[in-house]
Order: sequence, then structure tokens, then C-alpha cells
Amino acid sequence: MFKINENYQKLPGSYLFSTIAKKVNAYSTANPDRQMIRLGIGDVTQPIAPAIIEAMHKAVDEMGKAETFHGYAPDLGYDFLRSAIVKNDYEARGCDISTDEIFVSDGAKSDSANIQEIFGVDNKIAVCDPVYPVYVDSNVMAGRTGTYDAATEMWSDVIYMPCTMENNFVPEFPKETPDIIYLCLPNNPTGTTVTKAQLQTWVDYANKVGAVIIYDAAYEAYISESDVAHSIYECEGAKTCAIELRSFSKNAGFTGVRLGYTVVPKELKCGDVSLNSMWARRHGTKFNGAPYIVQRAGEAVYSEAGKAQLKEQVGYYMKNAATIKAGLNEAGYTVFGGVNAPYIWLKTPDKMTSWEFFDYLLENANVVGTPGSGFGPNGEGYFRLTAFGTYENTVAALERIKKL
Amino acid sequence: MFKINENYQKLPGSYLFSTIAKKVNAYSTANPDRQMIRLGIGDVTQPIAPAIIEAMHKAVDEMGKAETFHGYAPDLGYDFLRSAIVKNDYEARGCDISTDEIFVSDGAKSDSANIQEIFGVDNKIAVCDPVYPVYVDSNVMAGRTGTYDAATEMWSDVIYMPCTMENNFVPEFPKETPDIIYLCLPNNPTGTTVTKAQLQTWVDYANKVGAVIIYDAAYEAYISESDVAHSIYECEGAKTCAIELRSFSKNAGFTGVRLGYTVVPKELKCGDVSLNSMWARRHGTKFNGAPYIVQRAGEAVYSEAGKAQLKEQVGYYMKNAATIKAGLNEAGYTVFGGVNAPYIWLKTPDKMTSWEFFDYLLENANVVGTPGSGFGPNGEGYFRLTAFGTYENTVAALERIKKL
Repeated sequence: MFKINENYQKLPGSYLFSTIAKKVNAYSTANPDRQMIRLGIGDVTQPIAPAIIEAMHKAVDEMGKAETFHGYAPDLGYDFLRSAIVKNDYEARGCDISTDEIFVSDGAKSDSANIQEIFGVDNKIAVCDPVYPVYVDSNVMAGRTGTYDAATEMWSDVIYMPCTMENNFVPEFPKETPDIIYLCLPNNPTGTTVTKAQLQTWVDYANKVGAVIIYDAAYEAYISESDVAHSIYECEGAKTCAIELRSFSKNAGFTGVRLGYTVVPKELKCGDVSLNSMWARRHGTKFNGAPYIVQRAGEAVYSEAGKAQLKEQVGYYMKNAATIKAGLNEAGYTVFGGVNAPYIWLKTPDKMTSWEFFDYLLENANVVGTPGSGFGPNGEGYFRLTAFGTYENTVAALERIKKL
Repeated sequence: MFKINENYQKLPGSYLFSTIAKKVNAYSTANPDRQMIRLGIGDVTQPIAPAIIEAMHKAVDEMGKAETFHGYAPDLGYDFLRSAIVKNDYEARGCDISTDEIFVSDGAKSDSANIQEIFGVDNKIAVCDPVYPVYVDSNVMAGRTGTYDAATEMWSDVIYMPCTMENNFVPEFPKETPDIIYLCLPNNPTGTTVTKAQLQTWVDYANKVGAVIIYDAAYEAYISESDVAHSIYECEGAKTCAIELRSFSKNAGFTGVRLGYTVVPKELKCGDVSLNSMWARRHGTKFNGAPYIVQRAGEAVYSEAGKAQLKEQVGYYMKNAATIKAGLNEAGYTVFGGVNAPYIWLKTPDKMTSWEFFDYLLENANVVGTPGSGFGPNGEGYFRLTAFGTYENTVAALERIKKL
């Protein structure tokens, strides 16, 4: 008789967004006259930029003609895209990354969940708390996290690095030495980040203890301060200890287009074994390349017109972030993030729990956000608002909050 | 110090297609005047059908306007596509499959490699020999296959089911009881298949011994005989023992568009645990949905115009298959497949090994095929030609072979 992967049974229900949806639906049904404003989930609202639309139409046409049709893509990505990535995201920032260190994928969520597969089950992972749930859940499925304690909402074999206002949301080196360290910077959900100098200390630490850093830089395009690194490879020594995950979802609005990439430097080794070769083998066996049309869309992100249009798009969302931040400050809230990231993380007032504040905001301002406790125990007492709404809705939401 | 997944170290090099490429390059360089005809890899050559191109253009336009923009897709697929699949691929064949049993993905290769993740490491898999390498390699990576014996080219913990001309390429129930049985029907690489009655015996066997069948039906569109099942769910009892993988790559030429789906019936359980829920959780954690544009392309496959155009496209390739088959027969070869599948499997003449025949064909006819031994030890002495070339090249290749 076949046996299931029992690790799945350990996963607690993922109720965060479904609970939110249920509460919002219940409220809307009871109060059909109220206009809800949703600043909860991390999905974008602006359409794909014209230069990218044009590139996709062209690629669709190519697929319709025998002489320009494209079948199986190279497993690791088309050279036109890998070259554009190297030139714009790395060379331009002084990072020495080559095209065969770039692995194009269907998105950073897949990569952030799949990357753990090339590591042994006996590695100990460290994550920030609060954290993007995929890092932990994918390790649970692989059997790397021990047992779950529902009371503390923690896994016995995971090292948690609290990120709260007390440490300015900068994780500290854990007491127990981790093997794999997940860092998402600029951070989801807190919207905060660290300086390049602070990141350098993490690179030095990882090289010293022999840990590998999984560096999720999905929100890189939102960095506005000059002392923040856009890539971990701006730090010295990062190529021997870090894998970087990048997304096109937030800088180019590709949440429904699906494209991302992972950088695995050839110098990153465990003994003689190159992680670059391992990831290439994983990609070649368990993946079959991103769509040609989507890779052409990715290339257009780096065209002159694409860059100009996306700068404007990111600016649009960051204006929303500034609006939220200013509005909340004006209303007397303690607010974090929103400067180098499209997320605003606020301290709930009057010692409300995250869910109490969710209900309060839903019922009194008809604004939907995300309770911080949904991202981990140290998210309790915090609340996330996103800058990905329309400007009009964002302004209206803040007007309502200010009136409370 | 972090540790790698040591199972990757057990994988023998995947040299098949790279060895082919090297040999072809060497020959071409030495003989620059020769025109090569490639009937080796399984990639298609015909462009995407007009109805699908039109649907993609429309979807691209939608992505460019705020009011019709689509962000994150539902993890498991848009309802418009899941409904079209249910109606056309199942209801039309009398199979009772519901939309929430359909999981849309970026392709059947990913699904066929990922599906093993929901099973425990202590399951024993059974595969046909010869076999599509991804089934075995993905299980090697997960640590399910024991040790590799380079002499026999076999894994100690894999059950092999030989498929040769001696048993008419129909696998027999193995002596040792397997937990997970991979069946690809119509088959890659042999191009042969089994009757619905024969498939029913496998469903009965799996239900009896408590095994699960991973049924890869990627070549379903090429079935021409009426006693062959298009879906395993045409067999009684399949919903309690079978997962079906489906592809858009070969029926609609989506090798570079990337779309597939997996059916996990809700009745398929291990004790109380529903595999449907497990796969939903896996999909929701390690995947983020197929692109909106690609899902609309998939929907167009089922439109009236799409169906008519694709029937013609499949007919084009099957005319190639018939041409290859007739030509080889005329030249005195023993030939299999090509009736319900786009692959032709021939017995090498004069007791040549698969690689000897490869060289012979390359040097004397300038035709490139795939040595059967590359798919497993029982592929030795066989050779694969594909029907996915152009008609003109296919005819020319056979003319050359007939002249040998």
C-alpha cells in the first residue's frame, strides 16, 4: 500500500487570507451599502507597461509562424534574457555575475519554495519572525522543521530571528548556528530593510559558520536609500555563501505573467560540489523553461522604454506608500517601512491584537489590511497595509482612517 | 556547515541528448556540405494555431489595461480553463471528473517530476523499461531509488517492467508489489500503447494491491484506434487509484508556451487523507499559477476553431508517422508505434547496438534519431524517430534511409 509524505500532515491550516476573505464577506453582506477598500494582499493593480505589451504581441506573432516559432526553451532560460539580467541587474551595480549563474523560472514563489530541495534534510534553517510563510512551509513539506507547537506557533527545529521595533527590525545572529538562513530584504511583511553595512555582517557571518543565505530580493526595485544594497552580491564574499532570488512581479507587475530568476554563483560550493550544477540539474529535471512570450516580456523590462515606464509605475506605488505613511503618522500611529518597500507595517494602537485591529479597521473604516500575527508570533501587535492599490483608493482609505 | 541533498550525487550524467549533439556537430563540421535532417527530439515544428494566437493577443491586450488586468491567478487554475477541460476531456468521454479535481500547471514535465513529493520516501516505484527519464530522476532526487549499478544501468530500489517486442511492449505485473506505478500511454519512447481492456487490468491490479498509478497521457491526442482509452478514468475504479497527467505540448504545440494539468480525484485516499488536498497544498505553496495569457491560450484549444485547427495539426504529424512507418517497412525494418503516438520505434538491423545504428544513420543518411538505449537497458537494440518534423524533411529522410 502506498504511503503519503507524512510531513504534509504536520502543516497547520493556512487560514490567514481565507479568514480575511470570510470576515470581509460577512461584513459586506451585513452592510451592503459600504464601499470596501482593500489594502491587504500583495497583488498589484497597475496594468503591464506598454513596452512590455508590445514585446508580448510581437512574441505571440512569432509563435504563429513556422519560421519564427519557438518550441522548448532552454531549461535555464534564453540567453537574450539572461544577458539582459546580467547587464542591468548586476554589471550596472558592479557585481560580477555571469549568464550561466542566472536561472530563469516561472516566479520567485516557486524558486523560494523549491530551492531547499538541493539541500539535505538534516540542515537547520533560520528565518525572520514575522516571515513570508512559503520559506517555512516548503521546509515543513521536506521534513526539515521538526514538530509544530500550536501554542507558540513555532517549529521545534526552526531557528527564529525576531524582527520587532525593539531591534529596529534587524535580525540578530541566532544563538544556535543555522545551516540555511532565509533573508527577505527589503522585507515582506515589515517593509523595512537593512543597510549594506549590516548586510555585509550577515555575509561575513555566513562565510564564517559555513551557512548559506537564501536572499529574497523581490522588492529591490522599491529601494530609495543609497546605503541599501540592491543585490547581496554588492557585499564582499557573498558569492561563496549566497543564493539570490529575484522577481518580476512587483517591479514590472508580473504577478499574473509569471517570471523570476535565481542566481547561484559557481563559487558557492559544499566541498567539491557546486550548487550551481545541482540547481541546473534540478531545473533540467523538474522544470521545462519559462514561456518564450514571457521571457520576451522580461527582456522588455530592461529596454529603455520599459525602464522608463516601470520607473513611473514603481513611483506610483511609492507615492501610495508615502501617502499611507504620512496619513498614519498624522493619525498618531507608530509606522515602519514604506521607504524602501511597498509595505507599511504599523503598531496596533491601544494594545489591540492584530486581529482586533483588523476588525476595528474593517468595521469602522471599511478598510481591509493584513493582521501581522498571520506572518508569525512576533507579528502580533502589528498590521500590514500595501501600497499596491490605486492612488484614489489609497487616499480615500487614509481619509477614513484619519477620521477614526 | 550546510549539507547538500546527497541523492543528487547518485544521479548518473544525463548525456543522451548532449552526446547526440556532440556527435552531430562533429560530423557536420567534418562534412559541411551535408544537410542534416533531425528526427530526434520530441519538440514540435508547426506554429501555434490561429485561434490560439488570437486568444493570446486578446489576453495580452487585457493585461495592458487597468480595468481588464489580471494579477495573481488562482493557484489551481482559472475556472474558465478547468471547466473547459472537464467538459471536453472528461464529460465528452463519459468520465465523471469535477473542476476541483483539475490542477492547472506550467506543463506535464513539472507535474510528472513534482507529483512524487506528496508520497513518502519509503514507497517503491515501478517503471516501464525503456522509460521517460524524468520519472526515475525525480525519484532519485527524493531518495526513493536506492543505489545505481552502472553495469546494469538499474537502481536497486526501482522495479523495472521490461517492454520489448517479446511482450508486444505491454508491461506485465511485476513480481514484487510496487507502491507507485508510472505508466505513460500512448508511450514515449516506444510509440506503442495498450487497449482499454489491458489498462483496466492495471487499474484492477492497483486497487487490489493498494498501489497508485501515475498515468501520463501526454500523447492522448494521437490515439487513432477505438479500443484505446483516452483517459484512465474511462476504466472502472480508476478514481480510487490513479492520478492522470495531461499536456498541451503535443496536441497544441505548447512546448514553448508551457501548460499542462493533473487530475487528482477526490476519491483517491490513503486512509483518511485525500491526495487531492495534498496536491492542492503543494500547488498552493510551491507554485503560483500558470500565466493568465497561457491559460487563455489553453481555453482556445477547446474552442470550435481551435479544435478544428488542432485536429489538422495532429493529422499533419500522424501523416509523417505513417510516412516513416511505411518507408521503414519498405526498407525492410521491423517497426512499432506510430499508430496511436507520434513516435516510431524500430528494431536496429543486423544486431547493431542503438548507438551503432545512430552512427550508421548519421553518417550514411545524415538523419538524426535517438538511440533506444538512452531510455533504459531494454531500449538497447531499438531506435526512436519522431513524427514532429516537417512533412518535406520526413519524406526526404525516408528516401535517404530507403537508399541505404
